[in-house]
Amino acid sequence: MKKTTLLSATALMVLLPSLGLAQEADTTPTNAEIGFIFTTFMFLVAGFLVFFMAAGFAMLEAGLVRGKNVTMQLTKNMGLFSLATIFYYLVGYNLMYPGDGWSIEGILGAFAATGLEPVGLEGAEPDLTYASVGSDFFFQLMFCAATASIVSGALAERIKLWPFLVFTVILVGLIYPIQASWKWGGGFLDGMGFQDFAGSTVVHSVGGWAALAGALILGPRIGKYKDGRTVPMPGSNLTLATLGTFILWLGWFGFNGGSQLAAGTVGDITDVGRIFANTNMAASAGAVAALILTQAMYKKVDLTMVLNGALAGLVSITASPLEPSLFGALWIGAVGGLIVILTVPMLDKFKIDDVVGAIPVHLFAGIWGTIAVVFYTPETSLMTQLTAIVAYGVFTFVAAGVIWFILKAVMGIRVSEEAEINGLDKEELGMEAYPDFTKG
Amino acid sequence: MKKTTLLSATALMVLLPSLGLAQEADTTPTNAEIGFIFTTFMFLVAGFLVFFMAAGFAMLEAGLVRGKNVTMQLTKNMGLFSLATIFYYLVGYNLMYPGDGWSIEGILGAFAATGLEPVGLEGAEPDLTYASVGSDFFFQLMFCAATASIVSGALAERIKLWPFLVFTVILVGLIYPIQASWKWGGGFLDGMGFQDFAGSTVVHSVGGWAALAGALILGPRIGKYKDGRTVPMPGSNLTLATLGTFILWLGWFGFNGGSQLAAGTVGDITDVGRIFANTNMAASAGAVAALILTQAMYKKVDLTMVLNGALAGLVSITASPLEPSLFGALWIGAVGGLIVILTVPMLDKFKIDDVVGAIPVHLFAGIWGTIAVVFYTPETSLMTQLTAIVAYGVFTFVAAGVIWFILKAVMGIRVSEEAEINGLDKEELGMEAYPDFTKG
Amino acid sequence: MKKTTLLSATALMVLLPSLGLAQEADTTPTNAEIGFIFTTFMFLVAGFLVFFMAAGFAMLEAGLVRGKNVTMQLTKNMGLFSLATIFYYLVGYNLMYPGDGWSIEGILGAFAATGLEPVGLEGAEPDLTYASVGSDFFFQLMFCAATASIVSGALAERIKLWPFLVFTVILVGLIYPIQASWKWGGGFLDGMGFQDFAGSTVVHSVGGWAALAGALILGPRIGKYKDGRTVPMPGSNLTLATLGTFILWLGWFGFNGGSQLAAGTVGDITDVGRIFANTNMAASAGAVAALILTQAMYKKVDLTMVLNGALAGLVSITASPLEPSLFGALWIGAVGGLIVILTVPMLDKFKIDDVVGAIPVHLFAGIWGTIAVVFYTPETSLMTQLTAIVAYGVFTFVAAGVIWFILKAVMGIRVSEEAEINGLDKEELGMEAYPDFTKG
Repeated sequence: MKKTTLLSATALMVLLPSLGLAQEADTTPTNAEIGFIFTTFMFLVAGFLVFFMAAGFAMLEAGLVRGKNVTMQLTKNMGLFSLATIFYYLVGYNLMYPGDGWSIEGILGAFAATGLEPVGLEGAEPDLTYASVGSDFFFQLMFCAATASIVSGALAERIKLWPFLVFTVILVGLIYPIQASWKWGGGFLDGMGFQDFAGSTVVHSVGGWAALAGALILGPRIGKYKDGRTVPMPGSNLTLATLGTFILWLGWFGFNGGSQLAAGTVGDITDVGRIFANTNMAASAGAVAALILTQAMYKKVDLTMVLNGALAGLVSITASPLEPSLFGALWIGAVGGLIVILTVPMLDKFKIDDVVGAIPVHLFAGIWGTIAVVFYTPETSLMTQLTAIVAYGVFTFVAAGVIWFILKAVMGIRVSEEAEINGLDKEELGMEAYPDFTKG
Repeated sequence: MKKTTLLSATALMVLLPSLGLAQEADTTPTNAEIGFIFTTFMFLVAGFLVFFMAAGFAMLEAGLVRGKNVTMQLTKNMGLFSLATIFYYLVGYNLMYPGDGWSIEGILGAFAATGLEPVGLEGAEPDLTYASVGSDFFFQLMFCAATASIVSGALAERIKLWPFLVFTVILVGLIYPIQASWKWGGGFLDGMGFQDFAGSTVVHSVGGWAALAGALILGPRIGKYKDGRTVPMPGSNLTLATLGTFILWLGWFGFNGGSQLAAGTVGDITDVGRIFANTNMAASAGAVAALILTQAMYKKVDLTMVLNGALAGLVSITASPLEPSLFGALWIGAVGGLIVILTVPMLDKFKIDDVVGAIPVHLFAGIWGTIAVVFYTPETSLMTQLTAIVAYGVFTFVAAGVIWFILKAVMGIRVSEEAEINGLDKEELGMEAYPDFTKG
Repeated sequence: MKKTTLLSATALMVLLPSLGLAQEADTTPTNAEIGFIFTTFMFLVAGFLVFFMAAGFAMLEAGLVRGKNVTMQLTKNMGLFSLATIFYYLVGYNLMYPGDGWSIEGILGAFAATGLEPVGLEGAEPDLTYASVGSDFFFQLMFCAATASIVSGALAERIKLWPFLVFTVILVGLIYPIQASWKWGGGFLDGMGFQDFAGSTVVHSVGGWAALAGALILGPRIGKYKDGRTVPMPGSNLTLATLGTFILWLGWFGFNGGSQLAAGTVGDITDVGRIFANTNMAASAGAVAALILTQAMYKKVDLTMVLNGALAGLVSITASPLEPSLFGALWIGAVGGLIVILTVPMLDKFKIDDVVGAIPVHLFAGIWGTIAVVFYTPETSLMTQLTAIVAYGVFTFVAAGVIWFILKAVMGIRVSEEAEINGLDKEELGMEAYPDFTKG
């Protein structure tokens, strides 16, 4: 990093020796290049917003688990994001975008590690109608990591660290990219006209199905269901859970807005603006729905439900954040909030122990959002949407279930009873999250 | 979301069937369009920064209330932001920008819900000298929500949830947009030459006046003023209060920078750069002033005062973040910090109980910032600035006072003595923020 | 802030009376201007990301110190950033970029306060091949502040507030800009071909050397090294330490990406995309290396090491985030993580008490990153890199050491034994960070 004229003088000579003398023109883009620059810039901004969702998930989950399991939950979140980066690079990205065909060459290419353009694009001729590979990879990676984050919350407080991380590697390296290619890689569901703009199904439901399979095989926490009652196990830090929700909400502007995949025309940037406004509306409506409904049902507002209501609103609008009017975003998001309020107790009835409410928020609201596409995008077929929901559900639930089952058989996925009662932090990691403040 | 060439092939045909074959040109913007794209992009970035201020307010306030009232404070913050989205959409936005006249048609239009451009701008002809409606709505909404956030901190630890939320609805739907239209909607104070670039008065003082009216009608917390003394009630989490301050500081770059309302020329983007540098300087100077002054006055630095000093610096520069030199921003911000240090004890003397210091920070520093405009913008009249300060003060204080008074009469605004002593979290919400860590 | 057509009508007439009637053309940039706008816009976005690192450092450090010293750590972080703004403005910025020569005039100019362009660039003719001064100052300032942040963590829990702040002023006003000018101001190391893209040495090692000098002169915390053993003093809030790490990671996209110093061509923006992807990869690899290595060495994963591993990965890639492939970023980052794991115990062996691990992360990984440049930038000379490492080390260590020594003699740098045992918060500031939750 050096400043201004020094840069043009020295750095260009050092870094770009082959470009000759016509350097000055270099800083004046042509109009055909400007669209590419806008879209690439947009991917980077949207990408860092979605990156920050990793922190949002970490805070939400750390806030909603009990104090004795916080360090473990943080470790899982740091670990899963880092592994997602590596395995999406090694396998996932190319597998998700298999390119033109399924030839032998194509398959080999699909399992190749991701390569970026040369520095300064030297010798490369980029497709000026899209964006740089580096920015696209960065952006797409964050969606893959988000899928893995969804799983960690549901299985908290009883799953062992390493089996969880092994599952994450398989999820980000194989399960996510294979199913995502069906839609975003131009696969068969895309061919059928399935619509899922930013991933109500491809990201959120898939994460939810993987979490559901895990929760069923793992079983509920000790003491959660006793004598037919559900025992509340309140989260240890609602401030951080709220912060996590706000961070996720912030990141969602990148998640949905960036999925426009273009920002270089007035039409595209205007669409991104629509998406921001709709995304914010759906989140707000989900929160307000939960606020009113918990007051009506329980005579007391339940903050964790309000947080999950906002998140459910976000998941609901994700399949189609562009087409609805603001009013459409309002009611679609509100229904999302309502679904969470109604299905959280339902899961407990079936003794499916989802610590943070990830399955209602990401799976159930994700299904709702995928269906809701038909209201504002008339050319979308309800049957196609339902077909896709089932296809994604069956594939992910079975694939994840098999992996969880194998992991259970091979290395065990659940901590010992003693570790669960005393807390995973002390027993598994030997490190408490709040050592100065733990009760007695 | 689908990638690259697949997008141009499939999606364009599906989504934009009417555009015919000349699709490729679509990704090459004309120069007249590029200014529009830059400004819209800037609104989206500035808008998400200001959005994040909602998290900043939530963390600041949760950190400065006592542990027994944290869940309530978080619920209020989530609720107020969500309601601001909905009611600014339903009423506020059009009311704030009434357009050309006050005809019957205009008034009906002013009470209409916000409409966005059609998807892809199809059939619409946007004003290429500005930005997209969606991005503008998104950005403006965040200012309205910030105004409501200011109120919640001052009234913490004793106000009931629902009356507070009802007040919020009226504030964001009517009070804020009406008064904001006087300046930003091209109203009478704008006609008089009143200057308030990003809202020292229109946002911060207005929030402060509404908070002051509420604090007077609500009365101080039990035990706050005893035998002529002010009893300190220290905040429960200074780390999160500090985080909240940093988040607000971050958001303020969008708050002030985005208020340039243009980013498509070298002059405009350079101005946005000036604004960023000045905003950062004023915050720093406010913090340093508080650092030095609390050391000098109390022999000990007071972190909460340093945080409020930084925020007061930010409020002070908000009326004119563009015109002052860096040195101007420094001393204007420092005076803001000084005002907070001197007026916090003053409020206590009058037994006005402002839990987080919102009135000194937003109202008093806001008045100061509005006056300080005259030093670096000579064409501004001090008399006009003072007139506007008084007009905003009288209108907001009276309007808010009447609403608070009615709410008090109709539904009661204060929790029971028992609830206040035991904490709003347990009594009103049945949910503690830190259940694992509460003392004995 | 006023909207759309009202703006062009009223505001332009008020604010820009001299520009005459040809206003409409004003919103249509020429292509030569567009590169300038992109780069300025990028500096502002990258700059606010790096700004947010101040919050990241504050949360990381507040989370890693004991509960009794948290308020002090937060106060130091707020104070140091604010002072960095002021003194980088008063002295640092111009000293760092001395311009063309070392004439008397040049030296006087170098000690002048920073001046920005006139509002709207009126009368100024900016260098359209770079960016606005305001945006550049804003961006560069954040690097200076980051350097100071590094020092505060290492010296936590025993240093007095004011000597620390005095040291900060000298660091940001003199030490940082002088050494930074050697490379980024076009000084002698730049002339020798030394490569340090975003500051593995210029920012991180320099911060680390200053911290090392301070830690040696200050001595370890009471009770840290007893009977040949190192006594663990666990951090009080690992959730906030994790949040701090995620925020730093987020900010690093601006830190490294913005150091491209250009975003107005397809080559430049593509490079920024490469940098984002590589930066993220190095952080992930550092975290995974620490995850695996702590499991292998201690049979238990150590979350604080995973956090420091991620940060070390980030520091390692900072000297050359553009040139390596993704695989290069992976292994360079992983080695960074490994270095931290191995050198943290080493420092303890020498009884150098670095509370948060700042010296391993910023100094040792910074040296590694500076060396690693040679692997992917063949025109870089290993000898030059080593020469620079030594030059920076000797200068900073000696300069910082002298300052610490003088401060120790003049005002004392260490709190009393009593204050250290009872906590700096109570004794030095009279204010606890978590008053409702402290044990006993």
